[in-house]
Amino acid sequence: MQKLAPVNLAAIQRPVGQDLDRVLAELRRIIAADFPIIADVNRHLLRMQGKMLRPTLVLLSASATDEVTPQDVRLAAVVELIHVATLVHDDSVDHSVLRRGQPTVNALFSHQVAVIMGDYLYSRAIIELVDLDDPEPLRVMSRVTNEMTVGEMRELVAHDMLDYSESDYDELIRSKTASLMSAACEIGGLRGRPAEREALRRYGLFLGMAFQITDDVLDYTGTESVTGKPSGHDLREHKITLPLIAALPRLLPAERRQVQQLMADPAPSDELIHEVIGAVAARGGVAAAQERALKLAQRAEAELDQLPESPAREALRDCLSYAVERRS
Amino acid sequence: MQKLAPVNLAAIQRPVGQDLDRVLAELRRIIAADFPIIADVNRHLLRMQGKMLRPTLVLLSASATDEVTPQDVRLAAVVELIHVATLVHDDSVDHSVLRRGQPTVNALFSHQVAVIMGDYLYSRAIIELVDLDDPEPLRVMSRVTNEMTVGEMRELVAHDMLDYSESDYDELIRSKTASLMSAACEIGGLRGRPAEREALRRYGLFLGMAFQITDDVLDYTGTESVTGKPSGHDLREHKITLPLIAALPRLLPAERRQVQQLMADPAPSDELIHEVIGAVAARGGVAAAQERALKLAQRAEAELDQLPESPAREALRDCLSYAVERRS
Repeated sequence: MQKLAPVNLAAIQRPVGQDLDRVLAELRRIIAADFPIIADVNRHLLRMQGKMLRPTLVLLSASATDEVTPQDVRLAAVVELIHVATLVHDDSVDHSVLRRGQPTVNALFSHQVAVIMGDYLYSRAIIELVDLDDPEPLRVMSRVTNEMTVGEMRELVAHDMLDYSESDYDELIRSKTASLMSAACEIGGLRGRPAEREALRRYGLFLGMAFQITDDVLDYTGTESVTGKPSGHDLREHKITLPLIAALPRLLPAERRQVQQLMADPAPSDELIHEVIGAVAARGGVAAAQERALKLAQRAEAELDQLPESPAREALRDCLSYAVERRS
Repeated sequence: MQKLAPVNLAAIQRPVGQDLDRVLAELRRIIAADFPIIADVNRHLLRMQGKMLRPTLVLLSASATDEVTPQDVRLAAVVELIHVATLVHDDSVDHSVLRRGQPTVNALFSHQVAVIMGDYLYSRAIIELVDLDDPEPLRVMSRVTNEMTVGEMRELVAHDMLDYSESDYDELIRSKTASLMSAACEIGGLRGRPAEREALRRYGLFLGMAFQITDDVLDYTGTESVTGKPSGHDLREHKITLPLIAALPRLLPAERRQVQQLMADPAPSDELIHEVIGAVAARGGVAAAQERALKLAQRAEAELDQLPESPAREALRDCLSYAVERRS
């Protein structure tokens, strides 16, 4: 990662492009249902199909250690399914109305349907895993789905608390985001040597943490298409993330009072939000978070030295640039 | 089941009483968590501990076919855990505030905590199953948890529709209630002969259906401690169950209009609800549903002939009387 030119995801996915098409076919097969509401929700979820980053990680990890097998394709589909199940529940928990530019399941159907559908998708994923007759991916995935629920709980309490520490934040992003990316890489590399499998697990963990920090930074730096200003969505919801945590000790007394005022206000004004965003940037919070993401990406990159040279390994390297350099 | 004297659950549980204490210890071990909110919810759930009917079925089935092993105790705890996870999500989906006389998780904590806790408990149950290193109970339980989510979806649509048929209702109670009881009996009997295992699976299915029908009948016949009248809770929520389905074709035109009026009213009056309850009873809906429950219990009883005589088998027989004769 000497240079960090923006990399697009399509280029990263090229070495496993055909396998990704098979993942989509597998996903369709797995969630096929004859009960009307379930079939409707499934159609909607397939329409709002995301970037398929996690299946890409499974396939690249498999390709970097061995060949991609039909079991890898199935595992990649299962990982995406578990990801989608958690998104459906997350959106319901957060009362979100939009995801990937489409209405969420809770918004389009109902809150009830969203809770039940998340359970449906998750239990379908477990059936697929059980059906593989290989205890190892099942062990990894059951552990990680439980870890993600703890992450969700951590996120619920990561609000309002100005004493929320960087290590609290670390535990949150590990369990909420990095655990699944790490599991995706680990189960893709299950046929590799133990050192390769462990390297991929750690690569995925650092990648996932860098990815989530970048997400949280974008809330302070990204420009929304409509306003041309940062969204400040997390601040509006009183969510404490790394840029704010890093800036807090360096804020001027007046700036700190603004943060307190924002956290005390159930519906803070756009003006107040943008003043706090400005203060966080001015006191180095954004730069510190970006630096942290970059360091994590470098640690992830070092893990790749355990793998033999291959186009898949290079794509995993590019994934790191994508994770920390993306603009949305 | 020549005589159907009311049987109390404590008597049924006597042959496996010590094992049930071990199940409680297992439950405590499995859900132990160091994250504060999760630990709080767990304490609350252990306080509101239910009748332990499903673990009892696992243990009696094991005892009726072989000896109760530590694996059976663990499976019994897992079955109860999955049951509790679905209750936590159900209460959240239904916005229920009370369960077993205690506040629900959504009422005492929040809707968000309830959704995440259901996921937490379910994924903990899967970890335990994976840890057993026996694919068979995992196969049964993963299939059944998926089936239960379809049952939940069926229940969502079982409202308002006066053309809801008895076979729709059958599919609903099979997937929602009977599937887990059937699975409990099946995994308890996994070390039995194939014919015993199959008999227990079918016993549990018929028992579960009879149990749910009796539950739905109690909504029309049970007396609430405060009012001394039937609760009519299902009718208030426009939920169509067997007593109404059975009565509908025999209702007088005026009675049918009252049912339509009730279904059209988002908040029907107590008076209207009690008039409909009276009509459903007068036109034989309650008697027909009770008869159906009794027939199912008799089919379940016939399955027990596949098992050798034992105190556990007699307790399973008593379970049928309990299921159809209970008053709450």
